[in-house]
Amino acid sequence: MPKVTFLPSKKEITFEEQENLLKAAMDAGVHINASCGGAGVCNKCRIFIEEGQVKGEQLPDGGWKACTTVPLTDVVVRVPVESEMDRKALARPLAAKAVSWIKVHAESLEIRSNPVITKELIILPEPSIHDNISDLGRIRREVGQAFHLDVDSQVLYRLPHALREGNWQVTASLMETARDDHKRLIRVQSGDKTGANCAVCVDIGTTTVSAQLVDLKTQEVFFESSNYNPQVSFGEDVISRMEFSRKVDGLDILKEKIVECLNQLIDELVKGSEVSRQDISLVSIAANTVMTHFLLGLETKFLRAQPYIPVANQFPPVRASEIGLALPNHVRIFLAPCVASYVGGDIVAGVVGVGLNHHPELTLFIDIGTNGEIVLGNRDWMACAACSAGPAFEGGGIKFGMRATVGAVEVVHIHPVSFEPMALTIGGRKAKGICGSGIISLLAGLFMTGVLDRQGKYRHDLDTPRVRPGDDGWEYVVVEKEATSIGQDIVFTEADVENLIRAKGAMFAGYLTLLESVGMAIEDLERVILAGNFGSYLDLDQAIIIGLLPDIPRDRFFFAGNSSLTGARTAAISWPKFQEMKQVAQMMTHFDLSDNPRFMDNYVSCLFLPHTDLSLFPTVKEALSS
Amino acid sequence: MPKVTFLPSKKEITFEEQENLLKAAMDAGVHINASCGGAGVCNKCRIFIEEGQVKGEQLPDGGWKACTTVPLTDVVVRVPVESEMDRKALARPLAAKAVSWIKVHAESLEIRSNPVITKELIILPEPSIHDNISDLGRIRREVGQAFHLDVDSQVLYRLPHALREGNWQVTASLMETARDDHKRLIRVQSGDKTGANCAVCVDIGTTTVSAQLVDLKTQEVFFESSNYNPQVSFGEDVISRMEFSRKVDGLDILKEKIVECLNQLIDELVKGSEVSRQDISLVSIAANTVMTHFLLGLETKFLRAQPYIPVANQFPPVRASEIGLALPNHVRIFLAPCVASYVGGDIVAGVVGVGLNHHPELTLFIDIGTNGEIVLGNRDWMACAACSAGPAFEGGGIKFGMRATVGAVEVVHIHPVSFEPMALTIGGRKAKGICGSGIISLLAGLFMTGVLDRQGKYRHDLDTPRVRPGDDGWEYVVVEKEATSIGQDIVFTEADVENLIRAKGAMFAGYLTLLESVGMAIEDLERVILAGNFGSYLDLDQAIIIGLLPDIPRDRFFFAGNSSLTGARTAAISWPKFQEMKQVAQMMTHFDLSDNPRFMDNYVSCLFLPHTDLSLFPTVKEALSS
Repeated sequence: MPKVTFLPSKKEITFEEQENLLKAAMDAGVHINASCGGAGVCNKCRIFIEEGQVKGEQLPDGGWKACTTVPLTDVVVRVPVESEMDRKALARPLAAKAVSWIKVHAESLEIRSNPVITKELIILPEPSIHDNISDLGRIRREVGQAFHLDVDSQVLYRLPHALREGNWQVTASLMETARDDHKRLIRVQSGDKTGANCAVCVDIGTTTVSAQLVDLKTQEVFFESSNYNPQVSFGEDVISRMEFSRKVDGLDILKEKIVECLNQLIDELVKGSEVSRQDISLVSIAANTVMTHFLLGLETKFLRAQPYIPVANQFPPVRASEIGLALPNHVRIFLAPCVASYVGGDIVAGVVGVGLNHHPELTLFIDIGTNGEIVLGNRDWMACAACSAGPAFEGGGIKFGMRATVGAVEVVHIHPVSFEPMALTIGGRKAKGICGSGIISLLAGLFMTGVLDRQGKYRHDLDTPRVRPGDDGWEYVVVEKEATSIGQDIVFTEADVENLIRAKGAMFAGYLTLLESVGMAIEDLERVILAGNFGSYLDLDQAIIIGLLPDIPRDRFFFAGNSSLTGARTAAISWPKFQEMKQVAQMMTHFDLSDNPRFMDNYVSCLFLPHTDLSLFPTVKEALSS
Repeated sequence: MPKVTFLPSKKEITFEEQENLLKAAMDAGVHINASCGGAGVCNKCRIFIEEGQVKGEQLPDGGWKACTTVPLTDVVVRVPVESEMDRKALARPLAAKAVSWIKVHAESLEIRSNPVITKELIILPEPSIHDNISDLGRIRREVGQAFHLDVDSQVLYRLPHALREGNWQVTASLMETARDDHKRLIRVQSGDKTGANCAVCVDIGTTTVSAQLVDLKTQEVFFESSNYNPQVSFGEDVISRMEFSRKVDGLDILKEKIVECLNQLIDELVKGSEVSRQDISLVSIAANTVMTHFLLGLETKFLRAQPYIPVANQFPPVRASEIGLALPNHVRIFLAPCVASYVGGDIVAGVVGVGLNHHPELTLFIDIGTNGEIVLGNRDWMACAACSAGPAFEGGGIKFGMRATVGAVEVVHIHPVSFEPMALTIGGRKAKGICGSGIISLLAGLFMTGVLDRQGKYRHDLDTPRVRPGDDGWEYVVVEKEATSIGQDIVFTEADVENLIRAKGAMFAGYLTLLESVGMAIEDLERVILAGNFGSYLDLDQAIIIGLLPDIPRDRFFFAGNSSLTGARTAAISWPKFQEMKQVAQMMTHFDLSDNPRFMDNYVSCLFLPHTDLSLFPTVKEALSS
């Protein structure tokens, strides 16, 4: 693994994998001007190799393009520096990152396979004139001793054939019920099929739907796939979709769309894993309350308006075929229970997925998304709220905002003197837009370099052409049109900044209000778990600088990835974990922030960078004063 | 009510209703020659009115036609008598009849309404921002305290509308489960609908399907209807239908046919009672094992052949819509449990319908039909068997046999000297054929007058044109072609007699074998209950004479009518009674007579009139010797 030393700052970095020198510099905390995102077109990222071997592109007037040059041995790289001041300003610390909750707690998150639907091999005595009870009675005699056995009427159709084709050796699929001593026989297959018991696990997000096919015995994830939620065409957020659902056939259309999407994902899972549909026993779904309603085709009219009443928060198991999934008739859907209109099964699944309900530490669990769901608590109590942050951190409502896919600017560093950006895109392709992490990094950089003031307004007196009046007010040019793939300058406007401040303000006001409601303060937080897309690449300092995350020691932060999907999978593998979801949903105290005056006060105080009250952000205060 | 006195025998009879004098004579035990069945065409039934007023038809050469003449006042009627011997022979006793079990035990058969699906009125507090649990949670809070509540997912679709349309006053339909502390919410309607909770109760017989619509609260039977089982086109008996079911689509066709038939009956019930389909909560069905299999579309291949294995004997509740009944989605079908391949839910329902399982007396419960099911026992134990009697007593396999409908000869008396018949038809119409009771009465009469010998062969030396060789061997002419509606002589052949002897032999051998199996004898029988069509009009003496019923005191006989339908209704009204059916099905010891050597021996001994061993029939022995 090559070591890279950057001069003049002498910063060093060692890689696990082969990496170009622009990325290396970004990770090492070294600024190199680069506005094309690493696509090799702007020719600004000139560096000089002082020691070691590299492979890459040399510039005609000397030096190498950092963005296309990779080290072959340990190398020493010199970055051209224009002034002493410049040198000093660049001495920034390494980015603080959240660590993976799942990795750190891997051991305690291990679960025993104990799915809601199990398969049991049964070897039956062959009937004779002296033992001629019915086929069903024969099975009951064998498996129905330890518990009361209910039977799906559909089991009966194939039963006599399954028994005889299997030569009286069959596999029974037994489903747990709400009672320990009560099971339901949902399927009988000939022969030993106990090795084929799979689940489709799904997180239905407002924007993205992710699915996995998992072996319920070995817990192996055979395949995974995800796609946009096709309901997006009928509304970006849950509110507009609920409005659409009130049109003639609106609800049916939304239901059809998500069912189509799930069927397509199931197709991909089945093809990708080479598992037969016949080996699938259950579908475990975690989704927010509105998505859950749409999936089942339930009315959302009363969920939409005060007092925000869902049809149900806990859902009975539903046959997959009942809602139109192309799966065998015995397959059941289990839905993660919801807490309230805007705190849904995705959050409950997430909490159980990360095991928050087993830890004594005061933990803040946040999903930075449209609804901005927050859970505060530990194994003894939990409070939750949704703070309607809006989709800004997912790129929504941001002029050049986009999802975190190839071509999205994912990290930006602003040169504190020249205000030139160092922008990296996902995949090192020409920039198409800016994704969530890029937005945070841009906002933090522009604020800390003084390009933006605490109100989120651009300074007009800076010596840089990048800050300029645009069509939508003042803006900062992140990538010039020549270096983009969209043929226009990618800019970051004051309107974008306003949206972001509102979004982070809603989140922060949410934490604060929940903490206040239980008589606690920011500094009491022992852990913060970030659910969703913000993962290992989020620069915690930047997120704290803009006032999105609380200013507490960085080692208290963890990321959990798609914890909703993790929870759906956990519940599929373990019936007790599904029961835990119900307990968690019931133990959560829901705070409705929409009519909470404290929340409104807190929110208004949050409409600054990082906050009206700088004492809440001691490290930012210190950095600003230095 | 007019009193009729017949001379010269001085027999008297008083009627409840207006009745013609031919029927009056039959009921009074007076023979009047009459071969047209009472249709007024043969002009043989001449009588003279000595006192009183009548209305009717006078014959040109004096006297009146008994079959069309009704008394207006008390009358004295003289029947022309040809000889003293004749006079003596006619002095036969009044026919002994079974009495109605249901009437005699009306009090103990009263049940409390406690159906498996109840409707409860629920008045809910309106939601507010301080009480904003989900719609389902609100219902659960109100009704789910005393028991665990499962919920049909379909309930959720209409739930928010039902609650609000009913202004938070709703009717919940709750279904019992196998557990006392566990119910299932299957429907929520707006407002108070507790007054509308009905059941369709059905007996699916191999030949006839009978249905009733009953109010589950008041127990009132609103309407009833019946029809042929349309599967008859694919086989008269269960064996031939099971054979048909093995053809391509055979099983589907049989299922479709019975479902069509049920839908038509439900149509008639709904129209006839002016009850809405929406007010129906459940369908309670009693049927034999094969009919139950066909209704659910279950394989009968293994039921057909040794060791005779049904797919199931106890069936889970099925949605009415699942099998294609045109009833709302929440409606459930409950099927009476079966015991074995040929002892089905109709018998179990019958046993519970008559309450046999509550009486200490040793009782024989018989359904004289194709399968000839027998139950022997009392509240402590029960043994059962099917003796495959065949359909002879339902008119099947008898040359002019027919069902008991208008035009069927239902009773015949044979003149002991002239061998002339006195035949009455149902409805007093021209004869079309002979039904079950007519067949018994004919066989008994021909045997007791010596026209048939103990082997069931006609004597060839009698001075009557009625006994003659025919196309199928020797025969007796019951109705001459001029007096029929079918344009040919209605005859009773030796082949018919042979079939009947085999049928009654199978029944009697069945009783005897069951009794022997438990170490008991005929005379131990304290009660005999006749289920099915043989009711009040069966002449017990005649049925005993031919060896169909055991020769015990006549006051031990009861008829129960369609006890299978009674049982289905009982189970609909009372969930505990449905549970009793399960217990009864489980407590019954089934004897498979088909490979029982004692049964074969007994059967062979029964192939005489009344039996090889006359000591088993003391009253017949006495009558024959006098």
